[in-house]
Amino acid sequence: MKGVVYQGPHEVEVQDDVDEPELQHPNDVVIDITTSCICGSDLHMYEGRTDAEPGIVFGHENMGIVSEVGDGVSTLESGDRVVLPFNVACGFCRNCESGKTGFCTNVNPGFAGGAYGYVAMGPYQGGQAEKLRVPYADFNALKLPEGDEHEDAFSLLADIFPTGWHGTRLANLQPGESIAIYGAGPVGTMAAYSAKLQGASDIYIVDRVPSRLELAEEHCDAHPINFEEADPVEQIKDQHGGEGVDKGVDAVGYQAIDSDKEGDSDYDPARENPAIVFNNLVQTVRATGQLGIVGLYVPSDPGAPDEMAAEGRLGLDFGKLFEKGQKLGTGQCDVKSYNRRLRDMIIEGRADPSFYVSHRESLDDAAEMYQRFDDREEGVTKVLLEP
Amino acid sequence: MKGVVYQGPHEVEVQDDVDEPELQHPNDVVIDITTSCICGSDLHMYEGRTDAEPGIVFGHENMGIVSEVGDGVSTLESGDRVVLPFNVACGFCRNCESGKTGFCTNVNPGFAGGAYGYVAMGPYQGGQAEKLRVPYADFNALKLPEGDEHEDAFSLLADIFPTGWHGTRLANLQPGESIAIYGAGPVGTMAAYSAKLQGASDIYIVDRVPSRLELAEEHCDAHPINFEEADPVEQIKDQHGGEGVDKGVDAVGYQAIDSDKEGDSDYDPARENPAIVFNNLVQTVRATGQLGIVGLYVPSDPGAPDEMAAEGRLGLDFGKLFEKGQKLGTGQCDVKSYNRRLRDMIIEGRADPSFYVSHRESLDDAAEMYQRFDDREEGVTKVLLEP
Amino acid sequence: MKGVVYQGPHEVEVQDDVDEPELQHPNDVVIDITTSCICGSDLHMYEGRTDAEPGIVFGHENMGIVSEVGDGVSTLESGDRVVLPFNVACGFCRNCESGKTGFCTNVNPGFAGGAYGYVAMGPYQGGQAEKLRVPYADFNALKLPEGDEHEDAFSLLADIFPTGWHGTRLANLQPGESIAIYGAGPVGTMAAYSAKLQGASDIYIVDRVPSRLELAEEHCDAHPINFEEADPVEQIKDQHGGEGVDKGVDAVGYQAIDSDKEGDSDYDPARENPAIVFNNLVQTVRATGQLGIVGLYVPSDPGAPDEMAAEGRLGLDFGKLFEKGQKLGTGQCDVKSYNRRLRDMIIEGRADPSFYVSHRESLDDAAEMYQRFDDREEGVTKVLLEP
Amino acid sequence: MKGVVYQGPHEVEVQDDVDEPELQHPNDVVIDITTSCICGSDLHMYEGRTDAEPGIVFGHENMGIVSEVGDGVSTLESGDRVVLPFNVACGFCRNCESGKTGFCTNVNPGFAGGAYGYVAMGPYQGGQAEKLRVPYADFNALKLPEGDEHEDAFSLLADIFPTGWHGTRLANLQPGESIAIYGAGPVGTMAAYSAKLQGASDIYIVDRVPSRLELAEEHCDAHPINFEEADPVEQIKDQHGGEGVDKGVDAVGYQAIDSDKEGDSDYDPARENPAIVFNNLVQTVRATGQLGIVGLYVPSDPGAPDEMAAEGRLGLDFGKLFEKGQKLGTGQCDVKSYNRRLRDMIIEGRADPSFYVSHRESLDDAAEMYQRFDDREEGVTKVLLEP
Repeated sequence: MKGVVYQGPHEVEVQDDVDEPELQHPNDVVIDITTSCICGSDLHMYEGRTDAEPGIVFGHENMGIVSEVGDGVSTLESGDRVVLPFNVACGFCRNCESGKTGFCTNVNPGFAGGAYGYVAMGPYQGGQAEKLRVPYADFNALKLPEGDEHEDAFSLLADIFPTGWHGTRLANLQPGESIAIYGAGPVGTMAAYSAKLQGASDIYIVDRVPSRLELAEEHCDAHPINFEEADPVEQIKDQHGGEGVDKGVDAVGYQAIDSDKEGDSDYDPARENPAIVFNNLVQTVRATGQLGIVGLYVPSDPGAPDEMAAEGRLGLDFGKLFEKGQKLGTGQCDVKSYNRRLRDMIIEGRADPSFYVSHRESLDDAAEMYQRFDDREEGVTKVLLEP
Repeated sequence: MKGVVYQGPHEVEVQDDVDEPELQHPNDVVIDITTSCICGSDLHMYEGRTDAEPGIVFGHENMGIVSEVGDGVSTLESGDRVVLPFNVACGFCRNCESGKTGFCTNVNPGFAGGAYGYVAMGPYQGGQAEKLRVPYADFNALKLPEGDEHEDAFSLLADIFPTGWHGTRLANLQPGESIAIYGAGPVGTMAAYSAKLQGASDIYIVDRVPSRLELAEEHCDAHPINFEEADPVEQIKDQHGGEGVDKGVDAVGYQAIDSDKEGDSDYDPARENPAIVFNNLVQTVRATGQLGIVGLYVPSDPGAPDEMAAEGRLGLDFGKLFEKGQKLGTGQCDVKSYNRRLRDMIIEGRADPSFYVSHRESLDDAAEMYQRFDDREEGVTKVLLEP
Repeated sequence: MKGVVYQGPHEVEVQDDVDEPELQHPNDVVIDITTSCICGSDLHMYEGRTDAEPGIVFGHENMGIVSEVGDGVSTLESGDRVVLPFNVACGFCRNCESGKTGFCTNVNPGFAGGAYGYVAMGPYQGGQAEKLRVPYADFNALKLPEGDEHEDAFSLLADIFPTGWHGTRLANLQPGESIAIYGAGPVGTMAAYSAKLQGASDIYIVDRVPSRLELAEEHCDAHPINFEEADPVEQIKDQHGGEGVDKGVDAVGYQAIDSDKEGDSDYDPARENPAIVFNNLVQTVRATGQLGIVGLYVPSDPGAPDEMAAEGRLGLDFGKLFEKGQKLGTGQCDVKSYNRRLRDMIIEGRADPSFYVSHRESLDDAAEMYQRFDDREEGVTKVLLEP
Repeated sequence: MKGVVYQGPHEVEVQDDVDEPELQHPNDVVIDITTSCICGSDLHMYEGRTDAEPGIVFGHENMGIVSEVGDGVSTLESGDRVVLPFNVACGFCRNCESGKTGFCTNVNPGFAGGAYGYVAMGPYQGGQAEKLRVPYADFNALKLPEGDEHEDAFSLLADIFPTGWHGTRLANLQPGESIAIYGAGPVGTMAAYSAKLQGASDIYIVDRVPSRLELAEEHCDAHPINFEEADPVEQIKDQHGGEGVDKGVDAVGYQAIDSDKEGDSDYDPARENPAIVFNNLVQTVRATGQLGIVGLYVPSDPGAPDEMAAEGRLGLDFGKLFEKGQKLGTGQCDVKSYNRRLRDMIIEGRADPSFYVSHRESLDDAAEMYQRFDDREEGVTKVLLEP
């Protein structure tokens, strides 16, 4: 079958001879992919900043129609329309049974957490292809209403909508509280949108790209803060009556740009400062506040700006954080904690994150779309691939 | 000064010689009332169905400007614009310190909970007058922005907006969950509005008055259910795919009308069935669901339809509730738990409950407005009195 | 194989020709039973007060060694020592995925919740037999350390220890809080023991049987309250400085004895008053307190003392409960929410509920032991049956 | 009156002419001190590693008898026996009203949090003296039973017992979970004791002083881990079946000793590594685990081992923490969140932290006791001073 295969840094290829997935276990189903999105985190592999080896089939944001059903599957049948969390999870380990499905200890031996089509996340082929095998399908597949309503919105249930939402939950945002979100990419924008849906009062969003800030302003009622223009901490406090905000979300992670650093291009790694967003958040959020960290931090980064960061060790303003009595939560999203209820919000018309989808393209054009997305081409916010 | 004085069943009078409040304790302030609302719960006294003695000055939904400040007050000064929770609370008893300010054990000896201008809720004169004494003012007064923006919306922070919100919190409503609210009066409508603000998916609201149901449909996106037309449980399940909803709110209480009973008028006590809303909720909400009971139930009701109900003992379907593993929370609202953040939602434009205010009238017209409100005159949803 | 088969009211028989369980689904395992306990709730069937038909194999408190393993099972193998929650649960329905495994919607169609060997709880043969089929075994089986340490204590993980613990959690007991527990049978005693383990301050336990009260006093540091001697509410308040306690547990349920009623024997149904424990709890617990209801209430009781109770409708003091702003939780225990951590407390020596086990007998003697347990023979607190 | 006055590094003096406290505000009381403890955090000032100026009267762990009562005080009278949280808090600011009394925004302008007798924590004279003024006394004073029972245990309610408890709550320890506590000083030992009281399964405690480890083993059932003997992470995992523990507490803070570093003495600052405990905890605790950080970290440390640490910026293994999806909470204890219930545990005999008190001495001997405590003299664990 066709699939998007990683060839090496900055190169993917749509191949015709990818192995078709088969039922391997009684709890598996196979689905016919209807859409699989390109995710910002795919770019880490695409840019060659991970240990990914050529040959991986990408795609962890998957939606489709069940086509084959294992003997042990109880609640799914052929023809069911489903969306899959990017996490692969068993449903019965200690972490899964307490809702921490992003940290399943069974599906990826020696590690807590599995995913489709991602380096080091277990032997699960990605879904940027015609078909996908779904393990523990009763547990992992979320059923959608028949038909084709909300295709764009539902496709975002695989990752970015729940992940943005997760940021606000890790920060324990309450209705009426103020929040600052660093990063207006897919996750940050979804975090701002989630904050709006949850009844936050003031929402501040920090980025350097005007079009991203505009999108967040328009759809999430967020106050845009351009950190290249002035210190974002000061900008937020100025607008917020001189005080810190109640809660904060880091939707940037370790590849953060420091506006005080110069480089050959806007995103030159020489401009990176992996601790800057964290330290800004400590300043931005008031005493007793809480931070949700969903931007990616890694325990080892070969392309890091300094030796300490290469080992995932960052210079964090922990004395200040302690003095303020702040709390924080981290880690990848347990999609199953949220996707059922977010689906119902979409069905009922309370939420519609589809404003963030900019492109719906044929799988055959994957190589081009990867490149345009990686180039941060204006207006290419979210790309859905259709086989 | 002027004040609305209870004279006996169905009679209030605006008198000119009500005692002016004075500072009695170093933590008191006195405020000049700008508005004081008539509350549905005032009608219990007005109709003579309580032990209220003539002479009480009514008014527990109070807003105004600080005019006198006690020696011990730290954070308020003359000229500050404030809204007061209907609860009077000390701030330091065991209940207050854990946020249960509706059950303060200091302000009303021998009882847990105090309020302004209400029978059995302590020696606190009501605010339907020119001035009001506010005890423990640092704790009880919520400061508002200077000026006169949002007067209507802010006035609802004293009671019905937080009380409606409380119903949803006692039910532990989560974004994306479905909810059924019995009662489309002030509290029920505010509960539906709160559910919308919190991102509920399907919201059902049950009442018998079409204009109330329409208001909830228009402003709260609620599905209207008229219980006089057909069994509300069946109507909701029919619209909800045959299943129970996740959560429920009782915003009716013990004076519930049973559509199977007949009477001389729509609200003839002969039509009352104090257990019907509770029992309908048990049926309406699914197994593992949760109920928020904010409609009033009383331990003694002289006008009850039967002997058991007269002692506040109701025939509840507890076997079914247990089988479904439901939970419930009850009791009057701890306004301070919510009013600060609801205020901020109003300021930021996330919430505007002022759609529920129908009349802003002179205090001099209180007698007429009490009567029209008690007559349930069409369109008289919420009356604000201005001295 | 041998199994305990219900023959009709007050009669069970150990038969030799019970069908041996087989793997029916890839996620099943079969276990060799090492012990299966007689539970107080078995007596409802034994006494003929349910719709149980002759032929049911009893036993929902099961422990054993895995002997056969389905193709889809990932984490169990032959020889593993396991204890099973009395609930049968799928692990992936909406209720299971949120931890409400006592209300699984897949294993018992048309109902929320399944169990082994119990009327109306689905087609699952009980474990008072030589072997048992365990559905969704990865999810349902809790692994125990190899060997035979803690056999008695571990056997209580199937039901009564988690169920008693559940009572305290539904009441949201916090360390340092006071609690009153009505009922000193297996569940009430385990609730008192759980309260002690969780650091409750004063623990009161209410019953009429001196030996039960003594056991709770000795092992749970509970203050014994004999309700046949004087009003238990008054006794508790007298001992508690005149105040209500913080939290309460109902471990009695609908077959509660009312000391004001007379009968031909201590437990004559004529002495029953299904609402008395609930109403006493409302009085016993202070304003803002919380009640955990784990004693069984049923939606239909053919042997009820009055017509209302026959439909599971009870006369509850709801006006008082509302005035006090109390909360409550109900329903059967989700054993998986607790059994893993209670197991670890037993292993580490923090907990040892085995004090409650009075008899370990051969399965062959089941008929006699059922009779002695049903006769409430002094000292017969908990009977384990060994095949 | 007499009081312990700071003279400069390593010098305190008991002076006879300290100003007697007076009522300054209607909500004040003055108490006659019965005991005031020396706290480990007093040593930061004593050793000259803070900005404390000579003249400060020390003492934030205070207990005594009310002697003078302000006009606005409602619930205290002369003769009441009380213990004071080390925090000074108003009771009505946004932080206080949500229980964050350690971060009161009113009592120490420009900062969130106040305390008695401590540099930068507001103008509140310490209690190592004959008398103490207590602001907002209704809110701050916790009443104790009349008499002199539990004097030692109650005195620990001012700080170290709640602070140790706080560590376990920030880690969200649940009964049956395992926990590792770094530091076996007062706070760490109290954290281990709290973990035991809350029903933790395995408790590991890490220190370098054998006598401290023995005390924790004896009274808290903790497994002692001596970090000077081998890598504490490896030791814990070895004892814990090769796995990380569920939760962790940092009761050390920034002056942590690194066993890989050498110095002229055991506690030579040259041996310090302010990030080592944090980073060890990240390794010690399993994926999805949670850390409670109650050991002190400061935003500026003139005596820090390196420039980065001098600004409170530490090299933390944040990539690993993120990969494991860990959460953490920090900050000084909100004593009022716990002291009432811990008091009741002491009264009821569930808790007795007095095992940690080693000395009860006359205030006149304060200078000697400060020196012996600072010398970490064997057996000098906790010193109570009596005027």
